[in-house]
Amino acid sequence: MAKEGVEKAEETEQMIEKNGGKEQENGLGADTKEMRAVVLSGFGGLNKLRVNKKPMPEPQEGEIKIRVKACGLNFIDLMVRQGNIDSPPKTPLIPGFELSGIVETLGENTKGFEIGDRVMAFTNYNAWAEVTCIPQEFVYKIPDDMSFSEAAAFPMNFVTAYMMLFEVANLREGMSVLVHSAGGGVGQAVAQLCYTVPNVTVFGTASSFKHEAIKDSLTYLFDRNSDYVQEVKRVSPEGVDIVLDCLCGENTGKGLSLLKPLGTYILYGSSNMVTGETKSFFSFAKSWWQVEKVNPIKLYEENKVIAGFSLLNLLFKQGRSALVKQVMDKLIKLYCGRKIKPRVDSLWALEEVKEAMQRIHDRGNIGKLILDVEKSPTPLMANDSTETSEAGEEEEDHEGDNENKERMPFIQ
Amino acid sequence: MAKEGVEKAEETEQMIEKNGGKEQENGLGADTKEMRAVVLSGFGGLNKLRVNKKPMPEPQEGEIKIRVKACGLNFIDLMVRQGNIDSPPKTPLIPGFELSGIVETLGENTKGFEIGDRVMAFTNYNAWAEVTCIPQEFVYKIPDDMSFSEAAAFPMNFVTAYMMLFEVANLREGMSVLVHSAGGGVGQAVAQLCYTVPNVTVFGTASSFKHEAIKDSLTYLFDRNSDYVQEVKRVSPEGVDIVLDCLCGENTGKGLSLLKPLGTYILYGSSNMVTGETKSFFSFAKSWWQVEKVNPIKLYEENKVIAGFSLLNLLFKQGRSALVKQVMDKLIKLYCGRKIKPRVDSLWALEEVKEAMQRIHDRGNIGKLILDVEKSPTPLMANDSTETSEAGEEEEDHEGDNENKERMPFIQ
Repeated sequence: MAKEGVEKAEETEQMIEKNGGKEQENGLGADTKEMRAVVLSGFGGLNKLRVNKKPMPEPQEGEIKIRVKACGLNFIDLMVRQGNIDSPPKTPLIPGFELSGIVETLGENTKGFEIGDRVMAFTNYNAWAEVTCIPQEFVYKIPDDMSFSEAAAFPMNFVTAYMMLFEVANLREGMSVLVHSAGGGVGQAVAQLCYTVPNVTVFGTASSFKHEAIKDSLTYLFDRNSDYVQEVKRVSPEGVDIVLDCLCGENTGKGLSLLKPLGTYILYGSSNMVTGETKSFFSFAKSWWQVEKVNPIKLYEENKVIAGFSLLNLLFKQGRSALVKQVMDKLIKLYCGRKIKPRVDSLWALEEVKEAMQRIHDRGNIGKLILDVEKSPTPLMANDSTETSEAGEEEEDHEGDNENKERMPFIQ
Repeated sequence: MAKEGVEKAEETEQMIEKNGGKEQENGLGADTKEMRAVVLSGFGGLNKLRVNKKPMPEPQEGEIKIRVKACGLNFIDLMVRQGNIDSPPKTPLIPGFELSGIVETLGENTKGFEIGDRVMAFTNYNAWAEVTCIPQEFVYKIPDDMSFSEAAAFPMNFVTAYMMLFEVANLREGMSVLVHSAGGGVGQAVAQLCYTVPNVTVFGTASSFKHEAIKDSLTYLFDRNSDYVQEVKRVSPEGVDIVLDCLCGENTGKGLSLLKPLGTYILYGSSNMVTGETKSFFSFAKSWWQVEKVNPIKLYEENKVIAGFSLLNLLFKQGRSALVKQVMDKLIKLYCGRKIKPRVDSLWALEEVKEAMQRIHDRGNIGKLILDVEKSPTPLMANDSTETSEAGEEEEDHEGDNENKERMPFIQ
């Protein structure tokens, strides 16, 4: 009971922070409206995730309250779960950085939106819930023929792919691109965007079992465990113009070595840092220190460009939402012109978030994993590894990763 | 005499290499046509430079023989003189990487040029001579109203500036640029090219005594010894979009710190490595090792881009002459549209090359130093530090830098 009290207090604090203290007028207690949300109780394994009832958020000035229909699941969400990110936030938290839904309420001083608008949005956490409130600068109206699943699969992957290809690098006719994890959400977005430019060659790496499903989206496809440097050089001895790397570690040096003169290597993730279900500080530190540091004089001699791209930092730490809005406008036009279309791998209920995370961890997905808020968990899933929690029944997480206590069918 | 024999042999070897052995048919000796050229007898100080008679070169297949009118002098020429470059060539050599002149003879299988054409060209050494032969891919016709001095000042500076701003970075409306050595040839070219794009802010650093002469070409100008990071941040707390650095060393870290998110730092030289008249291995090694190595994960977190640009490597090691030709076409259009115009600092006779080099070493120039092949040395200069050498009278260089034996009026 004592511990439960602490959690309640944390929640109240969170609500007061969120709503600028209005709850003190409204009163708190059993009458407060609630909603379902995925809650990460602490950093660690899959067992840190639950679906809980949380207080209904209300929009502050400039915010838009959205009834969420679908949420995107990204590799970065695994890294958040593990606390394996730069300056992690406090737990408990509601994970998730992108969603689609319907505008339910408008905060003061919002403009350009009406109640009932179909929208997609970026959010700095709090996506995986039935309702969330988001500053209007991160919300975008979606075309009539874009489904909510597509819209939840759209923002992170396509904005990342577009900005890397056209803002950081300068993709033009006749160039070549190498992208890792070609079967993932960003990889598929990169492939589609490359084909909006004439005569672009796209090299990809992906697990062999995905090749049949994605081979038409790329010019050349190599197994992710192959010696892709040799494979690329066999086709193109000069190398490539752009390397997009979400793996980090030794792939940085390999990527740089594959660049043509004036070529650009972009690091946009570090998924190789995630080796197990729980955070491995050793693997993290190893990746950080072992990643090849680059001497600018070498770049000078070789005429090469190295860049990093983090969309979340750009949006939420570096205040570039206006630029991202311009990119989003261009992407929506491309979607309406049927040049690009998000590829959805699978839909999961909120209660199935652990299985969904395991699938992305195992790199089983082809395209995007979506949490469908209105979906009921399939019976097998519900029995296996999710727990429903009713209002007031806060599930207590046991310290450590008690993998033996819960069945984790997807973990080997 | 024995030593003179060795030099003769070297020269003969050079001729045979250059002309594919044709001299053996023509015969060698006193009758061979000769020309004047600046010769670097070995790596070291200014006393390694002489004007000597050299055998007249003849064009091989695909080459164009040019009667040189003017040559550009660049900071890289000082580094060559010191042997302070990656894989230095063998001496003796004729320095210089760019020139203007008149087409005198066409080698076999050349096209697009006629005898008498006014041209400018890149060349991998051998520019500082009365005549030189250059593969046609590095030769460009010049507009009627472009003087030979301007044409000799054009290729290195404007192609470097253009490719950095528009090929490596992606300069667009409303952006900001910081350029070091703003009074130099590249600095002035950067400033002019920035003003071809609407609403670009140009920050520059330069020695104070140049400020009056160049202040109209930049938006903000700071003393090269000032704390320019603070100065820039006072004007633009967010930093700048593009940093162009020819200094290296600690300026790399400073430049990176000044970048806005998605900003690009480009290293295109390392003139701070040249500290004295002769090569300082210590300063070279120090710069190489002390230059801040960059962790790609940091670039990822900060959304930054770091690049190197070496036009000479691009042309002569990496085979990108076709791309450079496209850039040159665009630049010539900008020149004809009176958008850009090379700024010539001063003209020097071949015999005055030491004084010209000293001037660039002391950063005394505003714009480009030109060797004017038809200019006679001013009497003072000739008496001071140059030596005329007649045919057959090879001047012997003394080993080491015998600075006491020669008067070097410009060296402190």
